[in-house]
Formats: sequence, structure tokens, C-alpha cells
Amino acid sequence: MTKKEFGALERVMLKSMQRSVHDTGHIYRVLYYALRIAKTEPRANLDVVITAALLHDIGRAKQDDYPGLGHAELGARMAWDILRKHGTSEKTAAHVRDCIRTHSYKGGKKPATLEAKILFDADKLDLTGAVGSARALLFGAEIDEPFYLTGPDGQPTPGKPDEGPSLLREYNRKLKHLHTKFFTAKGRALAKKRQKAMDAYFTAFEKEIRGGYKKGQKLLDEVLG
Amino acid sequence: MTKKEFGALERVMLKSMQRSVHDTGHIYRVLYYALRIAKTEPRANLDVVITAALLHDIGRAKQDDYPGLGHAELGARMAWDILRKHGTSEKTAAHVRDCIRTHSYKGGKKPATLEAKILFDADKLDLTGAVGSARALLFGAEIDEPFYLTGPDGQPTPGKPDEGPSLLREYNRKLKHLHTKFFTAKGRALAKKRQKAMDAYFTAFEKEIRGGYKKGQKLLDEVLG
Repeated sequence: MTKKEFGALERVMLKSMQRSVHDTGHIYRVLYYALRIAKTEPRANLDVVITAALLHDIGRAKQDDYPGLGHAELGARMAWDILRKHGTSEKTAAHVRDCIRTHSYKGGKKPATLEAKILFDADKLDLTGAVGSARALLFGAEIDEPFYLTGPDGQPTPGKPDEGPSLLREYNRKLKHLHTKFFTAKGRALAKKRQKAMDAYFTAFEKEIRGGYKKGQKLLDEVLG
Repeated sequence: MTKKEFGALERVMLKSMQRSVHDTGHIYRVLYYALRIAKTEPRANLDVVITAALLHDIGRAKQDDYPGLGHAELGARMAWDILRKHGTSEKTAAHVRDCIRTHSYKGGKKPATLEAKILFDADKLDLTGAVGSARALLFGAEIDEPFYLTGPDGQPTPGKPDEGPSLLREYNRKLKHLHTKFFTAKGRALAKKRQKAMDAYFTAFEKEIRGGYKKGQKLLDEVLG
């Protein structure tokens, strides 16, 4: 890929993104992770990896107009159209389309090619570590999810998988185990390394909440007699 | 204060709050912090502290209807009306009103009484530590603030105070120094203790971002030649 070709794709991406959790920062982080993973996979087609990373979330801004399709499937179809118009070969456009189609958990389809696995892992890496914690928080806020639930005793519940939705449950149920869900060795290694920052964050978070409620409610009970 | 009186105020609070960053979880955390601080201040009027903590954010849900007033001033006036209707003495209602009026930085008025200082510190404690990091993130998202800015070289900027707004600048400019802004000794001590979790979080956050961009852009430059 030339600088000029990259610039053209970058402009398409910038035009398609809206500022949100999935802002353009996410795209560059995913692109950079994808390149780091690809460097350890000599068979990877870098043009496909770069193109798929740049365009993987272009369906997000329009997903509400196509209910039931999902941003991955929608973005895959959009990317195909864009790439064919840009003169990309049918083979490459189809490969990029398939990478984008399987980058999300929600589609139900698993990434089939090496490049699709690289995109999937790069995208998931942005849900690990301190940055991933921040993005998980914003995802939760978008769907009006509380930090934690409280039980009949007024104390925070443990955030176990069988509870109602909360950020704490999301961490215990999904985020904590995310590093086991990677396809590439480099993706897995990076995820595992970054998991420490996430675990440290949520451990501190939970400790602050639990300690605060426990000590506070005891003092309140003393006052109210 | 009796359990019954507390329950009546709690119902007023629950009715007035809307789910957001300032959801009811924030109210209980502030109440509990306030009680912990008050325990170290034997002269504190606990009824005033508890009432002010429960009602301090009731102006938030309606602040858009009264532009220019601010949620602290609005909440202070609402609390006065509510308390007078509930039969609270004029002296106590005025004291609670003044606590609520000065709990926010934005009003420009500093807390004058011990109880007002306790409320201020308790409210600010919920902006420290891992929980405070989460709330700062959500505040930033509400005003569409990016995590970080990038410079002409495509690399993240340092988040210095003289830059445009970003989460990283908010941390460097305000959150990092918040523990020095407390009025009570206990508030300051708790803030300082909790600062470690926040610093650890933002240090990891910044490291992930910077490392990712630096390594990624180098690889991209190699590919694009």
C-alpha cells in the first residue's frame, strides 16, 4: 500500500466515523495493534489488515438505520461498495469485507482467515487494560447500566454472572476473561499483559465501593439508633 | 434523626434523582463519606450533614429548566422548600440550604460552616480513586470530550493544562491535584489514600496509549515506505 492509497482510505474512515466510544482514536489504536500482531505473522496480507482495520467500524454511524443487521455486517457491505468504487480488486475487497463481517462477537460468525483473526484480536485489545476499562465504562453508560447493584441490605451485590446488568457484573462475567478469547499468539500475549491494569483498576474500584458502603452504613445505623 | 425521618428524606431524594453520573449510588457514597468525616469532627451537627448529603444533588434533574442558576443553587432552594414543608426548623433548613449551595466548585462560594465543609469534601471524595476515575470518564463523555488529543505528528499530545480539552488534560490539570483541595483533615487523608488508585489508573492509561501509537506508527511508516 502506498501513502496515497492509505490517505484515501483514511479519509473515507474519517468521514464515516462519529465521535463516540468508537471515535477515530479507537480506529488508530486498532490499526496499530493489528500491525503489531501482523508483524509476528509473516503470512499476513498487510494491505488487507490495514484496510480492514481502517474501515472496520464505518457501519456504526448508520447501524440504527438498518435494524437487525448489526454494525459489522453493515460495515462489511459498505466497505465492499467503497473498495470496489476505489478500484480495489474483487478478491481483496471480498477478503476485507469478510474480516469486517466477523470482527464483532455479536454477528455470531467466527473470523476465518488470518487477517480476520488479526482484526478481531486488534479490536478486542482495545477492550483490555486501562483503556479497555474506560471503554467498558462508556459502553455501560450508553445503555444506562449502573456501576453496581445493591441488595435488600443496602450493600453492593457481588456482581456475579447471574445478577442483573451492572459494570461490576460485566467485569466479572466478560472483561476478566477476555484475554482467553484471542486467536493469535501475539494478541493473546498483549491482552494478558494488559489485563493486569484492568484487574488492578476493578479491584480498587470494588474495594472502594464495598469499604465505603460497609463503614458508612454502620455509622448511619449508629446515628439512627 | 430517627429512622422514619431518614426514610422520608430518602424518598424525597429517590424521587428527585435521575439515573446518570449523579445517580443514587453517588448519593449513598457521599452520605457514607460524610458520616466518616463527621465522626472525626465531634462538633458536627449530624442531622444537618445527613440531610444535606441526601439532598445535595436534587437540583441536577431540573437544572436545565433554570439556566444560569446552577444545580447547587437550585438544589439549595428546592431543599429549603422541601424541608420547611416537612416541618424542619427554619434554622436547620437554612443551614442545610447553605451546605448544598456551596458543595459545587461552580457556584464560586466557599463552604462556610463545618457541615458545609464536610458535604463539600464528601462530594469531592467521589471524584477520587478508581470510582472518581470512572466518574471523570463519564463526565467527559457527557460533554463529548476525547480521551486525548493528537498532534500534527499523529502522536498523542501530553495533556498539558494549556491544551484543548481531553480526559488526559482533565487528569493532569485537576484530578491529579484534587486531594490538596479538601477542607477537613479526614477528607484530605481519605483523598490522599485514594489518589494512588487514580494515579495508577491514569499512568497505565497513558502508557498504553503512548506505547501503542509510537510502536504502531513506526510499523505503519515501514509498510507505507
